Amino acid sequence: MKSKASSWKQRAGAGLFSVTLGLSAAALGQDKTDHPGVTPGEMAYKGAPVPAGEMKRVISPGAPDMTQAEFDLATKLYFERCAGCHGVLRKGATGKPLTPDITQERGTEFLKVLINYGSPGGMPNWGTSGDFTEEQIDIMARFLQHEPPAPPEWGMAEMMDTWEVLVPESERPSKPQHSYDVDNIFSVTLRDSGEIALIDGDSKDIITILQTGYAVHISRASHSGRYVYTIGRDAKIDMIDLYMNPPQRVATVKIGLEARSVETSKFPGYEDKIAIAGAYWPPQYVLMDGATLEPTKIMSTRGMTVDTQEYHPEPRVAAIVASHEHPEFIVNVKETGKILLVDYSNLDALSVTTLEAARFLHDGGWDASHRYFLTAANQSDKIAVVDSRDRNIEALVDVTKIPHPGRGANLVDPEFGPVWVTSALGNENMTFIGTDPENHPEQAWKVVRTLKAQGGGSLFVKTHPKSRNLWVDNTLHPQESVSQSAAVYNIDDFDAGYEVLPIAKWAGIEEGPARVVQPEYNAAGDEVWFSVWNGMEQVSAIVVVDDKTRKLKHVIKDPRLVTPTGKFNVFNTRKDIY
Amino acid sequence: MKSKASSWKQRAGAGLFSVTLGLSAAALGQDKTDHPGVTPGEMAYKGAPVPAGEMKRVISPGAPDMTQAEFDLATKLYFERCAGCHGVLRKGATGKPLTPDITQERGTEFLKVLINYGSPGGMPNWGTSGDFTEEQIDIMARFLQHEPPAPPEWGMAEMMDTWEVLVPESERPSKPQHSYDVDNIFSVTLRDSGEIALIDGDSKDIITILQTGYAVHISRASHSGRYVYTIGRDAKIDMIDLYMNPPQRVATVKIGLEARSVETSKFPGYEDKIAIAGAYWPPQYVLMDGATLEPTKIMSTRGMTVDTQEYHPEPRVAAIVASHEHPEFIVNVKETGKILLVDYSNLDALSVTTLEAARFLHDGGWDASHRYFLTAANQSDKIAVVDSRDRNIEALVDVTKIPHPGRGANLVDPEFGPVWVTSALGNENMTFIGTDPENHPEQAWKVVRTLKAQGGGSLFVKTHPKSRNLWVDNTLHPQESVSQSAAVYNIDDFDAGYEVLPIAKWAGIEEGPARVVQPEYNAAGDEVWFSVWNGMEQVSAIVVVDDKTRKLKHVIKDPRLVTPTGKFNVFNTRKDIY
Repeated sequence: MKSKASSWKQRAGAGLFSVTLGLSAAALGQDKTDHPGVTPGEMAYKGAPVPAGEMKRVISPGAPDMTQAEFDLATKLYFERCAGCHGVLRKGATGKPLTPDITQERGTEFLKVLINYGSPGGMPNWGTSGDFTEEQIDIMARFLQHEPPAPPEWGMAEMMDTWEVLVPESERPSKPQHSYDVDNIFSVTLRDSGEIALIDGDSKDIITILQTGYAVHISRASHSGRYVYTIGRDAKIDMIDLYMNPPQRVATVKIGLEARSVETSKFPGYEDKIAIAGAYWPPQYVLMDGATLEPTKIMSTRGMTVDTQEYHPEPRVAAIVASHEHPEFIVNVKETGKILLVDYSNLDALSVTTLEAARFLHDGGWDASHRYFLTAANQSDKIAVVDSRDRNIEALVDVTKIPHPGRGANLVDPEFGPVWVTSALGNENMTFIGTDPENHPEQAWKVVRTLKAQGGGSLFVKTHPKSRNLWVDNTLHPQESVSQSAAVYNIDDFDAGYEVLPIAKWAGIEEGPARVVQPEYNAAGDEVWFSVWNGMEQVSAIVVVDDKTRKLKHVIKDPRLVTPTGKFNVFNTRKDIY
Repeated sequence: MKSKASSWKQRAGAGLFSVTLGLSAAALGQDKTDHPGVTPGEMAYKGAPVPAGEMKRVISPGAPDMTQAEFDLATKLYFERCAGCHGVLRKGATGKPLTPDITQERGTEFLKVLINYGSPGGMPNWGTSGDFTEEQIDIMARFLQHEPPAPPEWGMAEMMDTWEVLVPESERPSKPQHSYDVDNIFSVTLRDSGEIALIDGDSKDIITILQTGYAVHISRASHSGRYVYTIGRDAKIDMIDLYMNPPQRVATVKIGLEARSVETSKFPGYEDKIAIAGAYWPPQYVLMDGATLEPTKIMSTRGMTVDTQEYHPEPRVAAIVASHEHPEFIVNVKETGKILLVDYSNLDALSVTTLEAARFLHDGGWDASHRYFLTAANQSDKIAVVDSRDRNIEALVDVTKIPHPGRGANLVDPEFGPVWVTSALGNENMTFIGTDPENHPEQAWKVVRTLKAQGGGSLFVKTHPKSRNLWVDNTLHPQESVSQSAAVYNIDDFDAGYEVLPIAKWAGIEEGPARVVQPEYNAAGDEVWFSVWNGMEQVSAIVVVDDKTRKLKHVIKDPRLVTPTGKFNVFNTRKDIY
């Protein structure tokens, strides 16, 4: 398998290499990972560019010598390749802790072997894969025995330096200046080119390509749908005005060195008013003016873990959603396992309520009623359920290894009523959790059904209130026939099993990994869009499937469509329909 | 002046030395300090014992060499002598920042001179005073050019290791087992012996001496008055049951390495139920069971400063009071200048509201109505006023240099109505602030009167609702006739000026600094108690003055009364009368 992975890498280019190297065990469903919350998405991506020169060099007694040049190189490589799993400060998260007390005991030779060959637990084989040279491995093995250098902080001064209003509010149009249906526009991440494509859901035309942050993690539509906010892994936010012709970036700000999440206020009276973004580094979130991205309040997430109540220096902000029940954001703090309710109704007296969930919180989404927020706690193999109305933890549901819901999928199960579904990285299970305590109290917050996907390595499940199909990708599965296709169940007849649609083949793509990722519905709920995600130098595509007939409807191919991954339909995103 | 100070030091022993050395400029009212929030109390005390062996040694490029033994010694000396002002992580607070980027630029020789001779800005002359040897100064000058080593964290595991219930609730009496009036007991800090004395306010007898944390900063009575909670500078809390005969420690826990504040819940329905303590290191506060001190929630205060919104790694917890209006604690965070409203009504969903005050928050107290909490922001020379009912910052009042209110003093000014009074370290001013927005709106949150004390170096002002006297000490004034006496104003006739009472002389104490500190009323409000605070090896005393006649009523002298400082009358403390 590893040789296959390597050959993929050679075909797909550097952008994708670590997907298969790092996650083969999990993707195969072997379930022997000791990276409990391993997130292939983390490994799949190159890290954000590191301001290595700004890092303080720190040397520990007992650590092997290294030159400043070696230290700088190691710092850069670590931030790009290792920090996603092991944490910038090496406290461990989805990867093991790598603090000097541990690494010095192992010693240079042991570390070199581990870095070179990787481990069955999920550590990539950086040496034998050809990614690190022998010399680089030696440097990394020595570097890891020193105290981790902390990247610089990123406070208000740094944010203000990067904040720009490109088009002032007064110069923005009051209604759409084009004939596209704003609600059926898709914002598509072009991850390795640092861009997004805006695609008209009706004509399937690319409306425009916009420069954004690097490897945009998500696009979120404002409540009105007029604005789209993107956040790059480099923590750069871009705010796009869909009314302009063509739609254009109107404001930007960089809120840290690495980030994943952005959201805007949705509570009545606050629509489009306030934006929030969460950073991986520094561990913090920031509230911003929804119309200009001007940062107003920065709040650190450093603090105690939920279970042992020990200090964690790097609790990263994962998913954020806007409550429909109160004027607040719901903020997942990964390493501490805490869920913060951030009340934005009075920014001069910011009130934050800490709910106690479990480690490590990652992504999640609403149930169909938009009252309950369900979110994955990776290390604990649990789904935490937040009651956003009563503002408490409603339940902690045990699920199988490494849930990865994205936002999850809501449907009405013919037997169990309303459920929320997540797929998993670590195995082939799609887990159905009852979400209707009123009419289905017996099923509420229990796993009521488990279906098999084609295998592990799934990133997303998807359906739509107007559909009877439940789609699941297997993007990170090592087998091409699986990763290049999508499976679909009939919601009215789960026993019939799934049908497999050869999405990449339909796109006519023969070369490259051509991984199929993230089913996304159009506004009407009658089309499903898939990305066929290929290497930088290869042809990618978006495949549009007719939801009713499950037949190919359209293929979008364009030289500008470089490495497309996540797609966000404006209507479904702003309405939290998934 | 310095030679005088040195001679005092020789007489008073090491426990007091730095008071006069460090604060002479401020105490003289010269007002040229560049330690903007310098707190003589900080310098007056030896630091808590440092777990130096546990500190991680960290060496920076560009810093001069030092041996491990030198590094360990410097770490210890720094924590004991320097951290109070400059911060454990040397970010600066009341003292200047001492991070390697700054100190390396200054260089070893410059630093040696500064440490040796001190500065007019308030830096003590550690060398010429004889406290540091030439060799130690050399070590310190080199040490300061290295990255600061961080002391260990102190999480739930460490707290549980130090938590002890000495007398379970079931074994405690249900009513007092002695004939003392519990409400008129005084808890007196014996700072250098690591003890408190419980003194019967009626007979003036020492009821018992109890071992506590080191240099107890405050004693707080529970709402019922039954329990007294003490907190040492070493962050050790002791809970004393006044119903027992003799009163006895019933529980203890150590909540960090250095601390200043403890408080218990007072809102109806929560009386005596929940305790809170704030630490200097680690920067955090902890909620505990009020009956057993079992720690339940630890919350970090690391975060952004209120003004520039830059990350501060060491925001220390200063004063804490319990709200009478809501089930919450009001927590001052010094370095970030934020005031936290910590809602204890639901510990599973802890809600914390951040009010934005100013740097550096220190101590403070209630107005007479117990609705408004007035607290000093040292660096900003402001008093922040918190409206505990509406939960906002009511005002930021400009005052003169370095307010040091303790808890302040409340009285009805014949001209301006209800006011709250603070004295100052940096000058001779006693500042009156109007606190009655309803009936005196013109005066509310304005400085309405400024009276002169005998000079600067005052720590405390005091009066009582039943008294017409306003007392002020000048504990840190360099002149003996001032520091060994107390001044008293007639509230009905401020124009008449103050009378000076020779408290130390009344105690018959001829030898030692014999500083007079902290007037404190008995429960009836007809006696004022003063500590005559002398060196460890010298005779100290408590002097009781008849409030009406201003004549000596009683002197408490006892070999066990070693270095008495703060005194806390149970009734006045639990009722927040001051």
